[in-house]
Amino acid sequence: MTKKIAVLGAGSWGSTLASVLIENGHDVTLYTNVVEQAAELNEKHTNEQYMPGFKYSEKLRATTDLEEALTDTDAILFVVPTKVTRLVAKQVKEVLAKLKQRPMVIHASKGLEIGTHKRISEIIHEELTDRYCSSIVVLSGPSHAEEVARHDITLITAASEEEKAAEQVQDMFTNNYLRIYTNNDVVGVETGAAFKNVIAIGAGILHGLGYGDDAKAALMTRGLAEVARLGMAYGASPLTFMGLSGVGDLIVTCTSVHSRNWRCGDQLGQGKPLDEVIEDMGMVIEGINTAKAAYDLSREEHIEMPITEAIYNVLYNKADIKEEIGSLMTRDSKSEVIGKRK
Amino acid sequence: MTKKIAVLGAGSWGSTLASVLIENGHDVTLYTNVVEQAAELNEKHTNEQYMPGFKYSEKLRATTDLEEALTDTDAILFVVPTKVTRLVAKQVKEVLAKLKQRPMVIHASKGLEIGTHKRISEIIHEELTDRYCSSIVVLSGPSHAEEVARHDITLITAASEEEKAAEQVQDMFTNNYLRIYTNNDVVGVETGAAFKNVIAIGAGILHGLGYGDDAKAALMTRGLAEVARLGMAYGASPLTFMGLSGVGDLIVTCTSVHSRNWRCGDQLGQGKPLDEVIEDMGMVIEGINTAKAAYDLSREEHIEMPITEAIYNVLYNKADIKEEIGSLMTRDSKSEVIGKRK
Repeated sequence: MTKKIAVLGAGSWGSTLASVLIENGHDVTLYTNVVEQAAELNEKHTNEQYMPGFKYSEKLRATTDLEEALTDTDAILFVVPTKVTRLVAKQVKEVLAKLKQRPMVIHASKGLEIGTHKRISEIIHEELTDRYCSSIVVLSGPSHAEEVARHDITLITAASEEEKAAEQVQDMFTNNYLRIYTNNDVVGVETGAAFKNVIAIGAGILHGLGYGDDAKAALMTRGLAEVARLGMAYGASPLTFMGLSGVGDLIVTCTSVHSRNWRCGDQLGQGKPLDEVIEDMGMVIEGINTAKAAYDLSREEHIEMPITEAIYNVLYNKADIKEEIGSLMTRDSKSEVIGKRK
Repeated sequence: MTKKIAVLGAGSWGSTLASVLIENGHDVTLYTNVVEQAAELNEKHTNEQYMPGFKYSEKLRATTDLEEALTDTDAILFVVPTKVTRLVAKQVKEVLAKLKQRPMVIHASKGLEIGTHKRISEIIHEELTDRYCSSIVVLSGPSHAEEVARHDITLITAASEEEKAAEQVQDMFTNNYLRIYTNNDVVGVETGAAFKNVIAIGAGILHGLGYGDDAKAALMTRGLAEVARLGMAYGASPLTFMGLSGVGDLIVTCTSVHSRNWRCGDQLGQGKPLDEVIEDMGMVIEGINTAKAAYDLSREEHIEMPITEAIYNVLYNKADIKEEIGSLMTRDSKSEVIGKRK
């Protein structure tokens, strides 16, 4: 059934998901606050900064007018950087209050709020409340916008506390190249998606420093165990970290040149200073902020997270990268059973 | 403390582990049934067929005399192909009976017995029984012999039902480039290690057919979920599949050119016939036999394993590879929660 959907955020993932929804027969409006970008999408049907060389459907309408995007919408898809999620949610709430609408909200971002360390669905729910939002569904998994855009097979997760809502999102996005699996562990999906970016920076650092495949696989595995321990402290099921939004996303992020977080680590490992890495990337590197959140949370919860701590020290304490990572990979042997803290 | 250790099997992994034990100060005898190989190891300190270009310590003694290898040994390390494990275990038992010895047994092989589908520790225990074997420890994890040989950092698991035995093996192997984590879930470690080779063939096939990173990450993740479901039917903890012997080994096997199982799949995906792939490899491809075992077991236990089934059909039923894998990647959407069978 055709739905009217507002996609907020015209980065590579947002514009690609908007494109998928149009191909699936939905009526989509893509909101961006950049006037030139909206004009480029509407006139040339391109988005050169984020998806160079890709041509969008002429049916894709972009707008900088949030009210226009939200009018009569069945669902809102948030795909904005984590640090502006609350701001955009506040603006959305005002418009929905005016329009007297209560749509479903989907989000496809990965990160935690700086300072509060809140998950994205928490931020959205705090701002919209049940009054302006019928349900929240998280979309997450191993997905490069570039591959989805060229119709390569991609499998992702739609997680919601409400099974029916997750299934509606599954129907909305599924087609012959994109398959959606439902899940009910929202905390596990969101924390896995956020924290895996920190581990991806670590895997990139190892690569940049010249370590081999064994070391990278070990860091990813032990990193995943850390992330699962932290997620469990928030009520996540450890098994969710074994799913598409956990290990699946970790694999694609750590083994692909497309990933910003991995590339950030790789360049740091090769000796490039952090400020230059950030400047040259030109896009948000979520893992940098998430590393601080994960580190702070591990301290608050007394959870041992040596990999996260090492990466935090490299990013925030100007620790010597070779020394920090070297000592991490050769620390005392222990049990790998999750739940044992030593 | 110096131990006397007999390593059985002089392939790439066996000879490398023997080399590690010598560097760690142990007294090691490497047993092979190939006279020329023993002579090459003793005279030239090389093992060109399996570890081209690598020079072994002059302290490494190779022998084709099993009794010489086992005399006064504290531990026996089995690193032989799965299909000869029972045969070698029978020979070992005879010698131990004659010598009146009861050493610890470690094994570092990955597979299941053809026909019986038994795990390697089960085969060894059936043959040696408690009378000739004080405990059994499984060594498994993301480890390329080539990387361990050049002292790249590698982390692996030592699993045993007896914690003390696992810790002894941890002490025996740990040094500044090899770190051992203990685990008590022998079934999870052995089934994960065996079945992951089937998924690695699948990941190789996707690569050979030209699929992207998203599809490969998805196949690895959903493959791991299948393997965990099957392992759980045998009493394994699902969390073990998230550890070094599970996802860690899967990652290194699916993302590295060193892996025979992955290369086998890659060549199949590129259209090379199976018999040519096997002939050209010149070394055992454990995943081919394990695919049959996994398929048979999934039928017996009524566990849905679509990825394993597709790979089985390609390997054993001459199924069209493009059709089989294509339909696998685009089947009906469902829930990803482990334990739900649909």
